[in-house]
Amino acid sequence: MADERLVEAVGETANDIARMETRGAVAIATAAADALATQAIESEADSPAGLRDELAAAARRLHDTRPTAVSLANALRYVLRDLDADSVAELEATVVDRATTFHTDVEAAQSQLGEIGANRLQDGDTVMTHCHSTDALACVEAAVADGKEISAIVKETRPRNQGHIAARELRAMSVPVTLIVDSAARRHLPDVDHVVVGADSIAADGSVINKVGTSGLAVLAREQGSQIMVAAATIKLHPDTLTGSTVEIEQRAETEVLGPDERAAIEDVQTPGDMPPLAVDNPAFDVTPPRYVDAIVTERGQFPPESIVTLMRELFGESVERPWESPTEIVSADK
Amino acid sequence: MADERLVEAVGETANDIARMETRGAVAIATAAADALATQAIESEADSPAGLRDELAAAARRLHDTRPTAVSLANALRYVLRDLDADSVAELEATVVDRATTFHTDVEAAQSQLGEIGANRLQDGDTVMTHCHSTDALACVEAAVADGKEISAIVKETRPRNQGHIAARELRAMSVPVTLIVDSAARRHLPDVDHVVVGADSIAADGSVINKVGTSGLAVLAREQGSQIMVAAATIKLHPDTLTGSTVEIEQRAETEVLGPDERAAIEDVQTPGDMPPLAVDNPAFDVTPPRYVDAIVTERGQFPPESIVTLMRELFGESVERPWESPTEIVSADK
Amino acid sequence: MADERLVEAVGETANDIARMETRGAVAIATAAADALATQAIESEADSPAGLRDELAAAARRLHDTRPTAVSLANALRYVLRDLDADSVAELEATVVDRATTFHTDVEAAQSQLGEIGANRLQDGDTVMTHCHSTDALACVEAAVADGKEISAIVKETRPRNQGHIAARELRAMSVPVTLIVDSAARRHLPDVDHVVVGADSIAADGSVINKVGTSGLAVLAREQGSQIMVAAATIKLHPDTLTGSTVEIEQRAETEVLGPDERAAIEDVQTPGDMPPLAVDNPAFDVTPPRYVDAIVTERGQFPPESIVTLMRELFGESVERPWESPTEIVSADK
Amino acid sequence: MADERLVEAVGETANDIARMETRGAVAIATAAADALATQAIESEADSPAGLRDELAAAARRLHDTRPTAVSLANALRYVLRDLDADSVAELEATVVDRATTFHTDVEAAQSQLGEIGANRLQDGDTVMTHCHSTDALACVEAAVADGKEISAIVKETRPRNQGHIAARELRAMSVPVTLIVDSAARRHLPDVDHVVVGADSIAADGSVINKVGTSGLAVLAREQGSQIMVAAATIKLHPDTLTGSTVEIEQRAETEVLGPDERAAIEDVQTPGDMPPLAVDNPAFDVTPPRYVDAIVTERGQFPPESIVTLMRELFGESVERPWESPTEIVSADK
Amino acid sequence: MADERLVEAVGETANDIARMETRGAVAIATAAADALATQAIESEADSPAGLRDELAAAARRLHDTRPTAVSLANALRYVLRDLDADSVAELEATVVDRATTFHTDVEAAQSQLGEIGANRLQDGDTVMTHCHSTDALACVEAAVADGKEISAIVKETRPRNQGHIAARELRAMSVPVTLIVDSAARRHLPDVDHVVVGADSIAADGSVINKVGTSGLAVLAREQGSQIMVAAATIKLHPDTLTGSTVEIEQRAETEVLGPDERAAIEDVQTPGDMPPLAVDNPAFDVTPPRYVDAIVTERGQFPPESIVTLMRELFGESVERPWESPTEIVSADK
Amino acid sequence: MADERLVEAVGETANDIARMETRGAVAIATAAADALATQAIESEADSPAGLRDELAAAARRLHDTRPTAVSLANALRYVLRDLDADSVAELEATVVDRATTFHTDVEAAQSQLGEIGANRLQDGDTVMTHCHSTDALACVEAAVADGKEISAIVKETRPRNQGHIAARELRAMSVPVTLIVDSAARRHLPDVDHVVVGADSIAADGSVINKVGTSGLAVLAREQGSQIMVAAATIKLHPDTLTGSTVEIEQRAETEVLGPDERAAIEDVQTPGDMPPLAVDNPAFDVTPPRYVDAIVTERGQFPPESIVTLMRELFGESVERPWESPTEIVSADK
Repeated sequence: MADERLVEAVGETANDIARMETRGAVAIATAAADALATQAIESEADSPAGLRDELAAAARRLHDTRPTAVSLANALRYVLRDLDADSVAELEATVVDRATTFHTDVEAAQSQLGEIGANRLQDGDTVMTHCHSTDALACVEAAVADGKEISAIVKETRPRNQGHIAARELRAMSVPVTLIVDSAARRHLPDVDHVVVGADSIAADGSVINKVGTSGLAVLAREQGSQIMVAAATIKLHPDTLTGSTVEIEQRAETEVLGPDERAAIEDVQTPGDMPPLAVDNPAFDVTPPRYVDAIVTERGQFPPESIVTLMRELFGESVERPWESPTEIVSADK
Repeated sequence: MADERLVEAVGETANDIARMETRGAVAIATAAADALATQAIESEADSPAGLRDELAAAARRLHDTRPTAVSLANALRYVLRDLDADSVAELEATVVDRATTFHTDVEAAQSQLGEIGANRLQDGDTVMTHCHSTDALACVEAAVADGKEISAIVKETRPRNQGHIAARELRAMSVPVTLIVDSAARRHLPDVDHVVVGADSIAADGSVINKVGTSGLAVLAREQGSQIMVAAATIKLHPDTLTGSTVEIEQRAETEVLGPDERAAIEDVQTPGDMPPLAVDNPAFDVTPPRYVDAIVTERGQFPPESIVTLMRELFGESVERPWESPTEIVSADK
Repeated sequence: MADERLVEAVGETANDIARMETRGAVAIATAAADALATQAIESEADSPAGLRDELAAAARRLHDTRPTAVSLANALRYVLRDLDADSVAELEATVVDRATTFHTDVEAAQSQLGEIGANRLQDGDTVMTHCHSTDALACVEAAVADGKEISAIVKETRPRNQGHIAARELRAMSVPVTLIVDSAARRHLPDVDHVVVGADSIAADGSVINKVGTSGLAVLAREQGSQIMVAAATIKLHPDTLTGSTVEIEQRAETEVLGPDERAAIEDVQTPGDMPPLAVDNPAFDVTPPRYVDAIVTERGQFPPESIVTLMRELFGESVERPWESPTEIVSADK
Repeated sequence: MADERLVEAVGETANDIARMETRGAVAIATAAADALATQAIESEADSPAGLRDELAAAARRLHDTRPTAVSLANALRYVLRDLDADSVAELEATVVDRATTFHTDVEAAQSQLGEIGANRLQDGDTVMTHCHSTDALACVEAAVADGKEISAIVKETRPRNQGHIAARELRAMSVPVTLIVDSAARRHLPDVDHVVVGADSIAADGSVINKVGTSGLAVLAREQGSQIMVAAATIKLHPDTLTGSTVEIEQRAETEVLGPDERAAIEDVQTPGDMPPLAVDNPAFDVTPPRYVDAIVTERGQFPPESIVTLMRELFGESVERPWESPTEIVSADK
Repeated sequence: MADERLVEAVGETANDIARMETRGAVAIATAAADALATQAIESEADSPAGLRDELAAAARRLHDTRPTAVSLANALRYVLRDLDADSVAELEATVVDRATTFHTDVEAAQSQLGEIGANRLQDGDTVMTHCHSTDALACVEAAVADGKEISAIVKETRPRNQGHIAARELRAMSVPVTLIVDSAARRHLPDVDHVVVGADSIAADGSVINKVGTSGLAVLAREQGSQIMVAAATIKLHPDTLTGSTVEIEQRAETEVLGPDERAAIEDVQTPGDMPPLAVDNPAFDVTPPRYVDAIVTERGQFPPESIVTLMRELFGESVERPWESPTEIVSADK
Repeated sequence: MADERLVEAVGETANDIARMETRGAVAIATAAADALATQAIESEADSPAGLRDELAAAARRLHDTRPTAVSLANALRYVLRDLDADSVAELEATVVDRATTFHTDVEAAQSQLGEIGANRLQDGDTVMTHCHSTDALACVEAAVADGKEISAIVKETRPRNQGHIAARELRAMSVPVTLIVDSAARRHLPDVDHVVVGADSIAADGSVINKVGTSGLAVLAREQGSQIMVAAATIKLHPDTLTGSTVEIEQRAETEVLGPDERAAIEDVQTPGDMPPLAVDNPAFDVTPPRYVDAIVTERGQFPPESIVTLMRELFGESVERPWESPTEIVSADK
């Protein structure tokens, strides 16, 4: 079994990801790429096929820690696609080179897309943010670095109030912040030039999967004539969606929404004996249709959401590889 | 000065309203009407003109406690309009009779509009609520009483989470409740037959002034094909808007949105010395244009929002009286 | 029991309506009004109260034949509202007078509204029709009589192809007709100046209940910039909706949609043993929201759909009478 | 023939209107009312019927000068409706009283509606104007008088550049003005709080007939989230439209659009011999559907456009009188 | 003349297509590809140029049978594009290989796109279908095969009721079916998750040409918040549209819409002597703009309609070949 | 310093562009390409590096004359991208060849796109034009050459009335023209099949930058159901926008809008002493969002605006070169 030959670094990386000590799309993706490189370097395989087997096993091990994390799968795909080599040494060199390039590119992506997003902002603009997205804030930061005065209206983003983090970071960039509850967005949109949000992932049909509330905000921004910009590095592109798959929406703990005391206060009421408990629905994300988004800003340029599929095909090919499923795919992959 | 002749009940009622011991549109309105009746009964005026002076003074005293409370002004208008009488006794009788009728009608209004709103709901419907409105819940309650099975998706309604109260009351009616954060509304709207909300006040141009977040919810409901029903007794109609006045939106304390510790955590960041403090905007209400509302349900029947102005003119006349401003208005008012 | 005293004409009229020998909103309404007059004339009651009892019983008998026929209920309301009289003779005179006026007015209504609707049409216009509505065709007929050249695109209106009748009648007016299947409407709308349809009934919230397919046609007409006119005499106004009631949509026989042979051909297929039979849904009507209608044309003038509630209140009052339910209502009715 | 008995003032007023020495909706309407009063005063008729004949003839003489001027017809209707009198003296008194009231009311209307429209404007607002409407400017003027700071973006309004007049008058009110070409409107709308325009006439279906370009501006204002307010005294309401009539759009001289030299420059080109001359279309007005208008501001209050029909029916009745057509109408008119 | 050298198989295939014995996009396309292969195999040409001449003639013969059938032209293009060869044998091999690949790919396409379309469907979804499209049904079939429970609302699709075939096939997949008339679509859309339709062809501007009624259905689906998926193998892409050509809409026989007896019944009416016969318009297809479509599902993945042009350019190049027009195009074609 | 070595032709071309003797996107672009070729031919450089230096200097000199002219920058990019050569002669040959190809292609582009745009027009269509665009007119001209009858409604296009030129040229093509003021567009759109406009430049997010008024016209065309086609050769694509840059909108002289006498007439009014002068805003262009455009027609085919970014990336690569900034870029440029 190939797994026995996995080097220690792979196991440690996998554990860190599984325990969420390694978190965030970029951190997970670069750790996985690095682990594959280490596997290649430290492998004792004596044939290219053997090393490919090990790499596939490593990919499987890493992939299984967070099977729905799109940046993790994208890292594995990038490093392991089309691994054709005549020798172990050549194969090792290729993997290491790919992992290094990937690591470098992913880390550079945020500041690159920040520059691109910043170009869409004008001096004096007011932006509105939802949740806390480092990609989105990179756009504002780059605009400020370009000397533009930017103000921000920050939605608190229940249930976890990530807007507080966004507010803190925006102030650190010298951006004046007005904090509002999520429900107050429409009232402030007439003063907003650009809604700037990130993405959890982006689908081939141009849909944007992001923190719940994004889709409603986008509808309201369109109704009020504000631009909507989604900032997302290409590791957020979701290749499975090229073949129609939809993105499963994570349900989070109800306690984020309702504390036990609050629940008790609601339920402590004279109800018929057969009343079910109060239900709480706490989806992490929602889906914004492309027609409510003006531009998706990536490190490879800006795109109307309807054409992001072209970038996805350029990056991942058409028959998307799943190197963690079988070593043969690593070779036979997309031409 | 007429104020000296105000009876004790007027002062007490005024104080209770000012200290918010008397709260809620109905309670304020009925208390004010009752106070005017007491003034009439206990008055020592020796001429109709004298009593009218006293009543105008009482109206002024009451009005000044909450000058923007539309139900209070409507109570004063109802009781004091067109007070033409030949004797003190006749005037007293008229005022007492008006106050009694008003008190009775206002108290009956909620259950009457509840029946009407219930008629719009079908067995098996799912409603979505925002904030906590007894008028809105009266519609659901009457539907349940009619034997219809109704489910509710309840928005928590930050910052004060009045959705918790709504959830509690709906469960007491045996209505199964799913609680969601405000941002999750669009995700659930495809399952919602009717959005049912109340109103703080309703303007002559058909706009609905209600808890902040209502207007965005209405836009999303329209986009998703859900019906939007506003339940509002006629004491919520805002006569000043007949002559174009807009309704001032109350700004509430920022601490409802952001606790001191949370503020400190945001501001405790390295910012340039001249950064202003974090701003928090906490408007109590927003304005929903009539084109996003399907029906306004009152105790006088249901109306498309664009025709509510006709009901307002029928109830208040065209040149709206302000009996608290001058006693002469009480007589010369709207023919 | 009052029913024993019902004159023969009431029973015959009721039977004719029940057996659908008397059909159509106008015919039913006038027959009912006439029957009430006959009851009044031939009554042997010796007190106004007695006659009122008989009239209420007659109303009940007539009403129960078609409890959802809005013109029937409106006829009963018109003739029997506010019947206050000092003598049987006076009461009889009132009833006869009301019935006569109602009969005359209803019969005149169609040509009156036809003139009004015709005024909205310009020389050279092309109209599109759905189903067969004599009110709608009256508008075209009056326009032609005014010397305007009108062309018509006629939707066949499955399942009963009433478009064929409309086509026939339009041609009899010298209007050139192009017949199309219902699905071809959007393709022809760029050439259509006015969509002209009738109504089964009209609700207080401005909704138009009409032959299934009307609401979709109205949406498409709005999308394509064509005007949408609903022609409906005021006997189509549905007073129950003033208090929120919705109009129940009749389900018609599935054989209108699918013949037995056609069903057999579909079902004669290898399916798992537990497949339910093919379902067929055949609603007679659908509901068009007011925002998709430009004008409702009645014999009392044209109205934006959002203000038809004002006309309804003017005609029927606020607390709509149901004289067939109890004789006391006849007296106590709407002031 | 009644015309022989017309007093000199009627003929002079008619001539002044016909020669356009008396211009503008208010001036025409008040002159016509005054002329009717003079006819009543100076008449030598010896019976009410005789005087009514003369008044009808005077109305006809006046009406024929500008048969499409809605304020003129409204003046005649107001003064001559329901003229029932027992004596010539009584009839004369009624006519004079009516004419005086009408004259006073019409002259007061503009400042009254100005106050109402001003109430819709907030301190710091920017308005956009189209054409030059004294009703619209009255709203701005009243807002400034209330101490509000208002800025204006003024469309030049080709072909006659009435925007220059509006700019001049707004500056006289101390309102800072930015002048733009009509095509630049959408580019400036994000900065505009209210589009404020007048009306040539207003139809019963809620349509606003106003200077060509208004309807496009209203669509763009809706798309960009700006409010649209139409300021129009009730003499602009067009009673003929209650019965479905549409308002004929005046075609103006092509030379307003294209001077002879400009035409020559365009036509002086090698074209096939049978090319028709260059066509120029210069409609004075266009029609704005009610769904693009937020409020119509009159001296009787503000109205959603969909409910203006109720005000029209209140002012003019249902079967609109045409006293210039026959004297009998003066008596038999609308009950 | 090259035609003389055409092998028998080409003539037979052409005849079968012309007589519609070979029908359906896939069958026509594969038959045409096979015929070209046979021509290459059986050719007696003694130079590559000679064989190219023959192939061009064969293409012309085949193309002329159904010049508007997009799959036929696409087959000819695929097999004959860029035919550069040094020998007859090489050329023959290329043509045979291309034809085989094309045949295989086209036959596999439907099940491949079915898998992709199925991925867009969720367990428990309700789909609505229009007409009968094997591509569309392949998506439902694959979803059912994946274990998802799917229900279907099937529009009968006048005039030819292909919905009956769709209903039959869906039931064979164990999908419960509700059949409705086309006009009832909007009434059922609130219960529909996905509208799933096929395409006759797809244009470079993202428009979908499909059975008449599709475009109206798509508008209504958007209005009601249902997703709209178009299932279409890439042989439906219409390369001529890359250079702006529009797709001609076939007019079908009026007897599909109106039988002779029905026509007689309509025309048998007293009309002026010069009335033209009743016109019947029976377009086979209509055009759905891309903004009303959420995704086009092909065997090459799913695409927003606005980016299908990229796939078209990838498949067909920019200067689309027309090998049936001249042999030189076969060589000079698209680089 | 490289500039000293610039040949005379470069200086002359630069001067002609700067003095606007060379005007129009095509003329500027071809002149610049030709100047680079002349520089290469007449250069006395003795190494490829030396010639590259000179070419970069020439590019800088040319670019600085009109730094915002997108066709100029595109010409420089096309001729100088990826200049890798082993000898001066080879480099010269490459540059000359590129310049020739560019010149030829650009000149052919207009007639090519004209053919493509013409394919979108049908016999009998009416087009509406805004401003004067030779690309847009080329589409109409090609349609007429194809034998289609086309009529045109021409907006005069204030402030410079370029519609007069368009009218003249359309008439020269035998196209009947109706001239209208810009404000009359919505009134005529129901008769318009296609709005056909050009572009000043096109951005990667699908926005169209064109003569001010285009964006409003596009919104109205969408509202009225008319198609909107933008005709633009690929030299109008704006590569800077690939990285998010927005296009600066030129402000033109206020005298185009308002003559001095007109200004004086407006300002000559009694205003408070501190009134600022009348402001005039005269933007040359505005920005039309892609959702209001149906197709962008280029010489490379037609595209939905949302996919034009793919063509831009194909033509210009991702990291857009700026050869005028540094000679090293000429070598290192985009792979």
